[in-house]
This record gives sequence, C-alpha cells and structure tokens, in this order.
Amino acid sequence: MRTAELNAQHNKLIWFIALPILSADLYSSVSYGPESGMTELMKLGPDAKWYIIPITISTVVLLFILIVSYIMGVLAYPNGGGAYAIAKDNFKPRWVSLVASSSLLVDYILTVAVSVSAALEAVSSAYPAVAPYETVLAIFCVFVLLVVNLRGVAESAKIFAWPTIGFMGCMLLLIFTGFFDEFQHGFVQHSTPSFGTVPQGLSVLLILKAFSSACSALTGIETISNAVPIFREPQQKNAIKTYIALGVITSVTLLGFAYHLYVKGIAPNPHNTMLSQLTESYFGHGILYQIIIWFTFVVLILAANSTFTGFSQLAAIVAADGFLPRGLTMRGDRLGYSNGIIALAATASILIIAFQAHTNALIPLYAIGVFLSFSIAQFGLIRRWKRVKGPNWRVKLAINTVGAFVTSIVAVIFAFTKFTSGAWVVLIVIPILIIFSLAINRHYRAVADELRIDLSTFRPKANKVITVVLVSGTHRVVHNTLSFAKGVSEDLIAVYVGFDDQSIHRMEEKWEEWGNPCRLVVLKSKYRSILEPLTRFIHLLEEKQPKSNIQVIIPQFIPKKWWHNLLHNQTALLLRMWLLRNKDVVITTVPYHLRK
Amino acid sequence: MRTAELNAQHNKLIWFIALPILSADLYSSVSYGPESGMTELMKLGPDAKWYIIPITISTVVLLFILIVSYIMGVLAYPNGGGAYAIAKDNFKPRWVSLVASSSLLVDYILTVAVSVSAALEAVSSAYPAVAPYETVLAIFCVFVLLVVNLRGVAESAKIFAWPTIGFMGCMLLLIFTGFFDEFQHGFVQHSTPSFGTVPQGLSVLLILKAFSSACSALTGIETISNAVPIFREPQQKNAIKTYIALGVITSVTLLGFAYHLYVKGIAPNPHNTMLSQLTESYFGHGILYQIIIWFTFVVLILAANSTFTGFSQLAAIVAADGFLPRGLTMRGDRLGYSNGIIALAATASILIIAFQAHTNALIPLYAIGVFLSFSIAQFGLIRRWKRVKGPNWRVKLAINTVGAFVTSIVAVIFAFTKFTSGAWVVLIVIPILIIFSLAINRHYRAVADELRIDLSTFRPKANKVITVVLVSGTHRVVHNTLSFAKGVSEDLIAVYVGFDDQSIHRMEEKWEEWGNPCRLVVLKSKYRSILEPLTRFIHLLEEKQPKSNIQVIIPQFIPKKWWHNLLHNQTALLLRMWLLRNKDVVITTVPYHLRK
Repeated sequence: MRTAELNAQHNKLIWFIALPILSADLYSSVSYGPESGMTELMKLGPDAKWYIIPITISTVVLLFILIVSYIMGVLAYPNGGGAYAIAKDNFKPRWVSLVASSSLLVDYILTVAVSVSAALEAVSSAYPAVAPYETVLAIFCVFVLLVVNLRGVAESAKIFAWPTIGFMGCMLLLIFTGFFDEFQHGFVQHSTPSFGTVPQGLSVLLILKAFSSACSALTGIETISNAVPIFREPQQKNAIKTYIALGVITSVTLLGFAYHLYVKGIAPNPHNTMLSQLTESYFGHGILYQIIIWFTFVVLILAANSTFTGFSQLAAIVAADGFLPRGLTMRGDRLGYSNGIIALAATASILIIAFQAHTNALIPLYAIGVFLSFSIAQFGLIRRWKRVKGPNWRVKLAINTVGAFVTSIVAVIFAFTKFTSGAWVVLIVIPILIIFSLAINRHYRAVADELRIDLSTFRPKANKVITVVLVSGTHRVVHNTLSFAKGVSEDLIAVYVGFDDQSIHRMEEKWEEWGNPCRLVVLKSKYRSILEPLTRFIHLLEEKQPKSNIQVIIPQFIPKKWWHNLLHNQTALLLRMWLLRNKDVVITTVPYHLRK
Repeated sequence: MRTAELNAQHNKLIWFIALPILSADLYSSVSYGPESGMTELMKLGPDAKWYIIPITISTVVLLFILIVSYIMGVLAYPNGGGAYAIAKDNFKPRWVSLVASSSLLVDYILTVAVSVSAALEAVSSAYPAVAPYETVLAIFCVFVLLVVNLRGVAESAKIFAWPTIGFMGCMLLLIFTGFFDEFQHGFVQHSTPSFGTVPQGLSVLLILKAFSSACSALTGIETISNAVPIFREPQQKNAIKTYIALGVITSVTLLGFAYHLYVKGIAPNPHNTMLSQLTESYFGHGILYQIIIWFTFVVLILAANSTFTGFSQLAAIVAADGFLPRGLTMRGDRLGYSNGIIALAATASILIIAFQAHTNALIPLYAIGVFLSFSIAQFGLIRRWKRVKGPNWRVKLAINTVGAFVTSIVAVIFAFTKFTSGAWVVLIVIPILIIFSLAINRHYRAVADELRIDLSTFRPKANKVITVVLVSGTHRVVHNTLSFAKGVSEDLIAVYVGFDDQSIHRMEEKWEEWGNPCRLVVLKSKYRSILEPLTRFIHLLEEKQPKSNIQVIIPQFIPKKWWHNLLHNQTALLLRMWLLRNKDVVITTVPYHLRK
C-alpha cells in the first residue's frame, strides 16, 4: 500500500461498522469475565453462586465510569490519544508515559494469551477430546495470527465486522431465550441458589479478588479512543456514538448473561465453560449450540488479532520516540510493523506454554496493566483540563477526577488481591521494561551526540587506502577478485596464507607464471589458522601507515543451490565477522556466482 | 600444536601401552555384548539360559577369524589401512570405498549412542534412582565428550590407558572370583540351568538373531589397524603383538564371563545389567561392586571418546577426497576436526533421545555397518594379494578369503535377522549417504572445472568500477564512509532513499550545506522499502555500463556492547545478504565503531 492511500477518505468507517470492528477485544471478554470472577468464589461452595449478580453489577458500573472517562479522552485528543500519548502530552518526566506504554504492552501480550486460551476452552467444552491438545492448538492459532499479520491486515478491514456482529447476535439470542425460558418455568427455578445467604469463609479480600478477576471483561475499552482517525467525519461525534452503543450492548449482555447464570445456578467447571453450560441448558448439543460455540471461538481469536495491530503500533510509536529498539518502527511491505508482530507472537506463545493455555491461571496477571494505563490516562486528562480549559472544562475535569479515582483504586485492588497468585510477575516486569526503555533512550542520545558534526567545517576528504586482497590460489575466482581490486587501487597487496613450505613455494611459482598480477605477500601459518597471521599482517600495516584506511578484499563463492553453501568453507564469512568486530578495517566482499 | 610435532618419535607408543589405549572400544563391549544376545532369547523362558555358552563360543571364534584377518591388513597397509583406504586402493569404482566409509561413519555414531547408554545403564543398575534420568544424563555425557574433544585430546594420551587397564583387572578379578566360588560351591549350582534342553518355540532365526546381537561385542576391532603409525618401531610387529594380546584377553574375558553367568543362571533384567547381577552375587553391594560398576562406566565413556577421534578422522579423509563437505577437513586450534566432532555429537544425541538411551533398543541398528566395512576390507585384501603377491601371499589370501566369507555371511545374517527391528533404518541411511557423497563429489568436480584457467592468457586486468555509497543523512558515520569512498574512487555516487518529499528536500539542503561532497542521487520509496528503489537504481547502472563492476559501499555501526546490536537497524546486514545473493555487485562494509 502506498503512504498516500493510508489516509484516503473512502477508507473511513461509518460508526455502526466501526462498532463491531473495534469492539471484538472488549465484547469478546464477556465470554470469560464473569466466569473468572466466579472461579475465585467457588471454593466457598454453592452458597456463593448468587454473588455473580452484585459482582456483575459492580463491573457494569465500572464500565460506565470508564466509558464516560474515555469519551473525555476522545474530546481532548481527536487524533487518537492512547494512554501513552496522553501521558506524554501532560507529564514532563518521561517515566510516567513509559509506565503507561510498558503496562499496556505487557497487557497486550496477556490479551493474546488469554483470548486464544479462552477460544480453545470454548472449543474443548464442546469437544472434550480436544482438551489435551489445547496448548498445542493455542500455539498454532498464535502462529496463524502471526502469519496473517505479517502478510498484513488493515485494522479497518470490514470483513472483521461480521463475526463480532454474529457473536453479539448469539449473546442477545441467548439472553432472549433465557427470559423466554423464565417466563415459562419461573424466574426462580429449582436450580436457582437462594439470594443473600452469606457463605462460610467469605472475606472482603475474596470478594475484591472475584471482582478484580471479573474486571478482565473490561479490557479492550481503549481501542476506540486510539482509533478516532479511522471514523468518518464528524469523527469525534461518531466515536462517541460508538462508545455509547458499545457500553449499552456490553452492559445488557453482561447483566443478562449473569442473571441467567444465576437462575440456572451454573458454577464454573474447568472442563466446560459457563457460557457453554448455559447454552446447553437451553439448546442441548444441537446446531444452535454449535453456532454459539464457534462464534465465541472466532470472536476471541479476532480479539487476539486486533491486539497485534494495537501492540505493534504502540511499540512503533514508543520506538520512534527512542525508548524501544528502532527496529520496531520498520514496516513490512504490507504496512505491518513486522518486528513488533513477531515479538508479540513470541512472548504470547511463551506465556501460553508456561500456563498450559489455562485462562484462569493467566487471569491474575491480566488487566493490572490496563488499569494502570487507564489511571495514568485519567490523571493526564485532569492536568490537561486544568491547563487547556475549553468549553465545559469543569464538568470534564470532574468526570476524569472520578475516573482517575476509580481506576487507580481498582488497579491497587488488582495488585493487592492477586499479588501472590501471579500479579507480582507483572509488577516486576513493568519496572524492568521502564528501566530498559530509559537505558535504550540514553544509548540513542549518546549515539546521536557522537554522530553530530559541524557541516561547514567537518567535510569528507579522500583518505589514503591500503588495499589487501586475500588469495587462495590462481583460479577464476581470484582472477575475478583481482580484476575488481585493480580497478579500485593501484597499490595492491595480495596475501596468501600457506600451511607448509611446499604449498607456499608452489603458490610463488604459479604467481610468477601468472605474470605477477600485483605484489604478493606469503604468510606461513604454523598452526593452520588464517586469522592469526592475517591479523598480525594488518597490525603491521597499521603501524606503518597509521592514518590510512585498510581495506581487505575477500572473494566469496555464491553457490546456485542453498545447500551447496554447506560444501564451501565459510572461512570468508567468519573472517569478515571477526575483522569487522575487532579491527578498524573496511571489508569488501567480491561475490563469485557459481554456474553449477 | 605445530604441524611438525605431529610425527615426533617420542610420542610413539610401546605396544603394551598402546594395547589398553586402543582397546577401550572393543574391550568395553564385553560388558553389554553377551547380554544383548541373551535378551533376544529370554522370551523363551529360563530353559534358554544355557545358550549363552554356544553363542559366546561362536562369538569368540568369529573374533579369532577377524583378528587374524586384520593382522593381514596390518601387514598390507603399515601406514594404517582402514576399510576405506583398503577399498580405495583395491577397487576402481568409488562407490565401493564409499560403502565402507558410510557404513563405518554410521556405526561410529551408533557406537557413541550405545556406549554412553550402556555406561548409564551400568550406573542405574547400582543406583536405580538414576534410571528416570538416563536420557538426560546420556546427553550430558555426550556434551562433555564434545567439549573435551573440541578442546582437543590426542588419541595417544597415555592417561587413557589406566581406566581400561583397571576395567580389564576388574573383569579378570570377577572371573577369578567366579572360579574360586565354583571350587567352593560346585561347578553346577542350584541356580545353574540344565545344559542342552531345547526350549519350546526355539527357531534358527532366533538363534541367529541372538548371535548377531552378541556380536555387538566385536565392534571396535578395526581401531588398531587404523593406528599402526602411532606404534614404536617395528610398527607392524608391535601392532600384531597388540592384536594377539587383545584377542587373547577378550576371548578369556568373554568365555569366563559367559561361563559364570551360566553357572549362576543369570538372566537379562532391564533394570540391572547381567554384569551388575554377577558382581552382586559375589561381592554384594560393597566396595568391590562399586569399583567394578564405575570402571565399567568410565571405560564405556572412553570407548565413546575414542570414537570421536575415529569418526572425525575418517570424515576428514573422505572429505579430503571430495566426497563429504570440505569443512570436515578443517582442524581447530588443538588439532581436532571440529566440524566432524560436532556432527558426531549431534547425531549421537538424536539417536539417544529417539531411543531413550535403551542399549537393547539400539543394538539392532548396531554392528551391521561395522561388518559391512569388515567384509569390504577383506575383499579388498583378497584383490591386493592377487595383484601384489609378496611373501606367503597364498596363505594371506586364504586367510582373507575365509575372513571375507565369514564377515559377509555375518553381515547378511545381521541384516536379515534384525531387519524389522531397526536394521532397515541403517540399510536405508547408508545408500542415502553414498548418493549424497557422489553428488557432493560431482559438485566439487564441476566447480573445479569452472574455476580452472590458463595462467598464460587469462590474466587480471583492472575493471572499470562504479562506486555507490549509501547515505542516510549527514553525520559522522557518513563522513567516515565518504572519506574512505573518496580514497578508492573519484567517480562517486551517493544514494539517499527517502520516504517522503519533506525528508528528501531536507537531505538535499544539508548536502548543499556540506559543500556537495560528491554527486547525490535521491530515490523516493513510496512503499517504505530501501531494497526496491536501490535494486532499480543498480539495474539502471548495469544497463548503462554493462562491463563495469558495481561496488556498493554500506556503512555499518559496530556497537561497543553486543546487546546494542538490537538497537540499531540491521538494514545494512540484510541489504548485504540480499544483494550478494541476487545481484552481481561488490559489497564494501565500512565499520564505524561506536565509542558508547
């Protein structure tokens, strides 16, 4: 794709097409969010089942606060303001924005691991035979996502709207069927747990833990605010519309889903997801069950897919600022940031293997990063309203103050309640990432300082160059190399390294017979090494003419078939690597393309 | 070590020191040979136990024939004649010698796998807790052997004599103790199976299978004939003395060991080797038992170690003849053929992992190769005696005729009886190796033909060279590169690739400000690729001046710390690889060593 095509208006999206495309990440997590929360409480026995209602209500309240806060973000940064951009704009010390970027990057990796694992758990609920292969299949899915993303997919590809629309339809159908079922069989059924009983062993800590796990359903909310530029005009208005619509549909789904789970008294089961259990209770194992399971699978994979774009773009932005390796800013032929995509796939795969693709084992690590970056974004917006003001700035300030307060409390709850079950890993990795980022930036600044020159005084002048050609005999490759070398230098030294007197003598004779193409120096290597006598010789030249450039010309075979590389000594390659690293010499490789 | 030191006389060995050094491979296999044979018969029940006597006697007869035949080899090839050298000298078609070399190489790999596995089985007989870690520990042993051999060990290191002497002492002590025990408790004990009963289900095939497995005790017999040059003068006489002594001591050990196993009625047990069982029955688990087990371990590891020398030397000889990759002829600093050593360790490790370090699972693949090469050597010697004649040539001819007859029958028995249990792998691998060897040779000959030139007419003349310097801006690295480039070429083109008009315009301005160091060509890349516009430009130059060399000069950062490499785009490296492979351009890399 050409650079110019990137911003063409006809590629922009109407809001109700953008809605499903940008919501895969958030909406798909309804399939595992409530279950993650309830898993924490299940050790208390069936008396704890009814807690799904208050916990889901709290989650929806938090969702409402987040969406309103994020709408403020859209108003403030119409060109797309991720937490990193907001922090960069409003906080002077760079580490603040690095907290936002590092925690988001870590959470993106977790999103891929969690979504793909949850996708496979959906499938293995329907087909228990798949269960032992979950890890392998999860890695395979990540690999497919890697290939697809390297080949390049525009985030705005409209085809991605359909699976999410389909999954939304499935969830609404499920909720509708639930109410229909309850109209027929009663809103309190024999399986409905009694509401309000306090189970033995319940503690505030446990409730908070369940709540924080359930909040994994809220990750992905930042996607729309990052993507404002892909909307049709009026962009901000459309983005806000989308936020509101997404908030409504997600709330309805979460509440309806939780309510029916409560009525049916469904508890988490490691071999059968709660979504699968509820669907079974209405439809059995028929075609509707299959459709819902496979839409769940596809939408979760899609959520992982959208993370690839999010991760690699954020990494590229941070890298362009000089806080991550610059290689992350390189785009492949099809616009994807290849290195970021590869890094994400690799790290997510490691997580999947380490946690054997168990969603509930990954959840304690998840969402802290997102809420950390949410908090920083809110605090950034607070500073912005105070500084920039603008229409209704006091209202916006109030909203973001509430947002900042709530998100930071939630982040602290997360870190505290899940610390021992895995959150500590994230709380160690994020600071390490920040320290690395700062070190990288120091290095780049030091290099930039070193490279800066005064253009008016420091101008290139021709250096004296001593040219050394390595020769291994008197054959076509040497002829080819010498013909080039004579073209660039009149003062040429051919160097031959021999292991015994006999071969040295023969070489001298042949050189004579060849009409002495240039001066020949023979070096005797008693220890059968080429490197050792050669470096000694280079050292000699350096001492004699300390101000010159030394150029070493090395011939290299380029065979026709790749496996022929095994058949030709890779001396040239090793020599080149060693000399470049350890000596200040220019290395010229003259290829000889073998015909056979 | 210097080349000259290689052949110094004071490094040569007296025969009774050479005996233990050269016999580790053959003598160590007495510890698993009889057991491998009996494992085949054990499905017939305890009635088959007495077959250990006739099978061991047949093995010893075969050993006698082999030793006499190999002495003929020593007489014919005093400079060390392996099966490959003998075949090369006596058969015109090269594939015959390649059969010998390929089957020996395959068998060397198996020797390492079998010896190391047997060594760990010895240890886990004494310490059953070790059993689950056999594979891991076996790989670790191979790794240690790899490191030791890369660091370099002379085959003739006298220190290697002691463990074998110790193990021989252990075996003789065991046999002596056995007779002492039998004098006390009778030569037929209550545990002694009745001699001569034919167990149900016995077949000729099964006996032949047991015999061929037991013959794994005879591998390693070729070592002395390969090593004639390391003996003190008179070399041939000393080598023959060693052969006879080794034959006597091995026969005594095999027969005595088998006899006591028979008396004690010991049967194979996958968790306790027969050697360990016999030792237990005499000494319990005391200090003598420990000594015998650990000597067995060390001598088996030593057998694997000596194979490293054998394999890498043979591979180097075949490679020097142009039938294996030439890299195998390169010696490391300490004389070892590093690539051969690495190849052996890698393939043996794969075998150990595939067969989970079970000696008896590896045995069916083993020894066919050795007997194939034995047969070829014998047939080669037959041809030699007919051609060269010499003193007593008729006797020698007769001996080798018997040898050729017996070894080829044994090879056929091996292939036939063990075909389905694994020998087919070897019988497929060997021909594949031969086909590869022939293809490699064809390639080398074709290249040699292509490179040959007439020295009196085809002489190097200076080519016209067009020099292109890639510039990414106007900084110190570009200054450094241009200063070199100006030294080698007056007609210089600097090429800048820009992604948008703005950066191109800025570059042109700065170039102006820098005083136009040389002609500047700016290329616009709409697709953010450097390679694509650059190759188009090179193509243009090629068309304009078809007879010139094109030299592309690329600056390259050399950072101070290795991990800094990650921070600098590896564009230079990728560009270089692509251009060398696909275009006929000379690539010059100008390093810039970063100070920070």
